[in-house]
Amino acid sequence: MQEKFEQLQEKLRDIIDLGTAGALLGWDQNTYMPPAAAETRGHQMAIISRIVHEWATSEEMGRLLEDLKPYQESLDPDSDEARMIKVAKREYDIATRLPSEFVVEQSRVTTAAFSAWAEARAKSDFKIFEPLLAKVVDLNQRFAAFFPEVDHPYDALLDQFEPGMKTAEVKAIFDALRPEQVELIQAISEQPQVDDSFLHQPFDEKAQWDFGVEVITQFGYDWQRGRQDKAPHPFTMGLSIDDVRITTRVDPNFFNPMFFGTAHECGHALYNQGHARKYFRTILSDGASLAVHESQSRMYENLVARSYPFWEHFYPRMQEVFPQMSGVSLDQFYKGINKVEPSLIRVEADEATYNLHIMLRLELEIAMLEGKVAVKDLPELWNTKIQEYLGLTPPNDALGVLQDVHWSYGNLGYFSTYALGNLVSAQLWEVITKDMPDIEDQIRAGKFEGLLTWLREKIHTHGKKFEPQELVQNVTGSKIDPAAYMRYLKNKFGKIYKL
Amino acid sequence: MQEKFEQLQEKLRDIIDLGTAGALLGWDQNTYMPPAAAETRGHQMAIISRIVHEWATSEEMGRLLEDLKPYQESLDPDSDEARMIKVAKREYDIATRLPSEFVVEQSRVTTAAFSAWAEARAKSDFKIFEPLLAKVVDLNQRFAAFFPEVDHPYDALLDQFEPGMKTAEVKAIFDALRPEQVELIQAISEQPQVDDSFLHQPFDEKAQWDFGVEVITQFGYDWQRGRQDKAPHPFTMGLSIDDVRITTRVDPNFFNPMFFGTAHECGHALYNQGHARKYFRTILSDGASLAVHESQSRMYENLVARSYPFWEHFYPRMQEVFPQMSGVSLDQFYKGINKVEPSLIRVEADEATYNLHIMLRLELEIAMLEGKVAVKDLPELWNTKIQEYLGLTPPNDALGVLQDVHWSYGNLGYFSTYALGNLVSAQLWEVITKDMPDIEDQIRAGKFEGLLTWLREKIHTHGKKFEPQELVQNVTGSKIDPAAYMRYLKNKFGKIYKL
Repeated sequence: MQEKFEQLQEKLRDIIDLGTAGALLGWDQNTYMPPAAAETRGHQMAIISRIVHEWATSEEMGRLLEDLKPYQESLDPDSDEARMIKVAKREYDIATRLPSEFVVEQSRVTTAAFSAWAEARAKSDFKIFEPLLAKVVDLNQRFAAFFPEVDHPYDALLDQFEPGMKTAEVKAIFDALRPEQVELIQAISEQPQVDDSFLHQPFDEKAQWDFGVEVITQFGYDWQRGRQDKAPHPFTMGLSIDDVRITTRVDPNFFNPMFFGTAHECGHALYNQGHARKYFRTILSDGASLAVHESQSRMYENLVARSYPFWEHFYPRMQEVFPQMSGVSLDQFYKGINKVEPSLIRVEADEATYNLHIMLRLELEIAMLEGKVAVKDLPELWNTKIQEYLGLTPPNDALGVLQDVHWSYGNLGYFSTYALGNLVSAQLWEVITKDMPDIEDQIRAGKFEGLLTWLREKIHTHGKKFEPQELVQNVTGSKIDPAAYMRYLKNKFGKIYKL
Repeated sequence: MQEKFEQLQEKLRDIIDLGTAGALLGWDQNTYMPPAAAETRGHQMAIISRIVHEWATSEEMGRLLEDLKPYQESLDPDSDEARMIKVAKREYDIATRLPSEFVVEQSRVTTAAFSAWAEARAKSDFKIFEPLLAKVVDLNQRFAAFFPEVDHPYDALLDQFEPGMKTAEVKAIFDALRPEQVELIQAISEQPQVDDSFLHQPFDEKAQWDFGVEVITQFGYDWQRGRQDKAPHPFTMGLSIDDVRITTRVDPNFFNPMFFGTAHECGHALYNQGHARKYFRTILSDGASLAVHESQSRMYENLVARSYPFWEHFYPRMQEVFPQMSGVSLDQFYKGINKVEPSLIRVEADEATYNLHIMLRLELEIAMLEGKVAVKDLPELWNTKIQEYLGLTPPNDALGVLQDVHWSYGNLGYFSTYALGNLVSAQLWEVITKDMPDIEDQIRAGKFEGLLTWLREKIHTHGKKFEPQELVQNVTGSKIDPAAYMRYLKNKFGKIYKL
C-alpha cells in the first residue's frame, strides 16, 4: 500500500511540475510576453492543459485512488497521507465528471467571451458581450448539472473555489451582513466627509515602488523565493513555495493602487511561501480556498496597512520619501486612506462598501443560473440593484455590469470568495489579538514577525490540508461568520466618522 | 497520404508547442527566476523534456515516418513537404539511437558537471572538474558509438549542431585557415598598437541600454515580436517567429560588451524572426545550424557594427549620448573597437585572433574523443597550445582550460560552429557586396533595410529547410570556405595596422 501511495504521489508530482510550468507561461503572458506572441502562447498553454487534464483524469489515476481506499480508511483521517488521498480523490472526481467535449467547448467559449467582453467594455456596449455571456451561463448550468447530488446548482460552482462550502451558508452569511453594512454606510453618509485629496497628486513612480518594497520586506516577503513585477491587473503566482511572484501597478497620480495593492499581493504571497516544506510538490502545497487566500491578502492590505498603528510607524518614513506629504498630519492621512464613499467600481471600493458589490453579483449569478433572469435584462437589473445598495446609477455599462473580467473567464461562483475573505480576515484578527494582546504595539514598532509566525503556524503551513470552513473552525472556534467583521467595521469607522 | 502527412504535422506541432514552453522556462531561469527556485525549475523542465523525448521517439512517430516514405519519394525533393519529412526523419533517427538509460545518465552527469565546473572555475582548481569531465568525455564516446556508420566518431557529435557536416571538412577548413591567421597576427604584432583606453571608462548604464536599443531598432529588430532583458551570459531565445527574445549585459566601465553583444544577439534574433510564416509551428521554423546562426550574429556584430561606414553614421550620435567621447576622433574610435591583441579569453577575443581559440578547442576535443589525451593532462596541453598559437600563458586554469561552460553541459562538438560562423559571415558579405554594390553607402546613411531584405530572402526565410553546406552553396556558389574571411581580415586589419 505504501507503494501504491508512492505511485499516487509520483503521478501528482508530474501533474504539479507540468501544471506549474504552465502557470509560469501565464505569469509571463501578464508581465513580459511580446504583444505579437499571443497565438504562440495560446498553443503552448493549450498543450500543457491538455496533458494535465489527461493525467488528472486517467484510468490509472482512478484505479490507484480506488486501490488506496482501504489504506486511506486505515489511516488517521487527519494525517497528511489520508488528507492527500482525500484531496486527490476530490479533484479526480470533479475532473472526471466533465466530459472532454464539455471541457473543449468551455475553453472555446471562454476564449471568445474574453475578447467579446474586452471589446464590449471598451465600447461600453453590453450587446457585444450578451450572446457570449448567455453561453457562459449555459455552460455553468450544464456544469452544475454534472453534479446532480448538490442541494442547489450554485453549490457545484462555489465548490470549485471553496471546497465544501454551500450556497445556503453563503446566503445566510450575507443575509446577516447586508442590513448591518447598509445601516453603517447610511450612518457614515450622514457625517461630514473626510478629505483624501492629498492622495490624488503626483507620487514619483520609483519612490512608490521602493517604498512598497521596503514595507513588504518588513512584512517578511522572502525575495530569495520571489520577485515583484508590473502587471496591468496585479496578481500573485505561486509556482512552489520557492517561487512566489507578486505583481503590482503604479499610478503616478494616486498613492493607493500601488501601496495597498502591493500589501494585498504580499498577503497572498506570504501564504504561498508559507506552506510546510514537507508538502513540497504534493497536492497539499496550495491554499485552502480562495476565501482563505483572500483573508490573508485583505488582512495585510486593510487590517494591517490601513491601521493607525501601522502608520504611526511608517508615516514619518512616508513623509521622508514623499515630501509633498509634509503638510498632512498622521490623523488626516489615516482618515484619508480610510475614506468611505459609495462608488461604482468594486476594485476601488472601500472596506465598508466592498461587500455590497459582492452581494449584488452573487444575487445576479444565482438568478441567472436558476434561469430567473435573462442575460439581456442584466444591465437594467444591475443598475437597479446598485442604486438600491449604494444609491448610485452607472452612467454606462462599462462602469456597471461590464466592469469585471470574471464572467468572461467562464466563471460564475467566484465573487463571493472576496467577501468571505474579508470576513475571515476579521475573525482571524480577533484571535490574533487574543493570542498576542500587544499586536498593535508590535505593529507600531514596525515588528511583523509575530504576526507572520502566528499566520504561518495557524494557516499557512497547513496548505490545502483542511477545507476552508474546517480551517476557520479549527483556528477561530467557529465557522465563517460576519460578526467579527461588523465589529471591526463599526469600531474602526465609528471612530473615524465619530458615529 | 495527405492525411498521414497532416498527422505527422500534428505530432510535430505538439512537440514544438511543448518544447518551446520548456524553452520559456529556460529564458526565465536566466533572467528573472528567484534564486531559490532552481530545484522547482529543474523538476518543471525535466517533466517537459521527458514528454518531448517520449513523443519524439514514439512508435507512432516511427510508423508515420515509415508510412510516409513512398509519399516523400513521390514529391519534389526540394518541396517544403519533402524537406519536412526529411528533417523529421533525421531527428527521429538521432533521438531513437540513444537508449533512454543513456539519456537519463547524460542528464544526471551534466547536472553534476555544471556544478563541478562552476566550483572549479570559481576556485581555479581543475581537479574539481576533472572526474566529471572524464565522464562527459566517456558519454560523448558512447554517444558517438551509437552512430557506427560515421567516418570519424567526432562526426556524430558535430552532426548534432551542423547537420551533414564532416570532421574532415572542418579540419580541412581550419588547416587552410590556421597558417594565414597566425601570419596575420604576427604581422599585426610588429606594428604600433592602437589605443582603446577610451573604451574603458564609465559609460552610463541606461544610456548604453538605450543606445543599443536605438541601433537594433534601426537594424530591423521587431519589438512587437520580441524584447530585451539582462542576463549574466547573454543569449537569444526564439520560441516562435512571434516571440524572439534577446538578452544582454551591461558593463558600466567598458563600452564593448553591451554594444557589440547587443548587435550580436540582434543578428541571431533577426534570423529567428525571419523564418517564413508558412513554417509557423513546423519543424522547419528554426535555424539551419549553429554555424549559420553564428554567421548572422557575427555579421551584425562585426561586419556591420565594427565597420567604418557604420560609425560614420552612428559616431556623431554616440558622441551626443556619451559626451566623454568628444575628444576621440572617429578614426581613433574605429581603430579602438578593432584593436587586435592576443588574449586568454575566447569571448573577449578580437576578430583576428578569435578563430585560433576555436581551433585549439577543436584539436583538444578530437584528441580526447579519440582517447589520445587523458583528461588529467588537459590543463598542461591547453597551456602549451595557447602559448603556441597566441604566445600567452594563462596564470591559472580559470583563465585557461576552465573558462568555457560548454563541456559542463555535456557537449563536445559545439565550438567549431563559432569559427565556421565567422567564415560564413564573410562569404555572405562578398555576395551581398556584389548584389548591392552600394551596401556601404546604405550603412553610411543608417539604412539597414536593404541588408535585412537580402538576408531574409537568401537565409532567414528558409529556416531549417536546407542543410548548412547546402544553404551556403546555394547562396554563395561554394561550400564553407575560409578564403573570404581571410580576404576580409587582411583588408580590414591591413588598413588599420598599415600592413
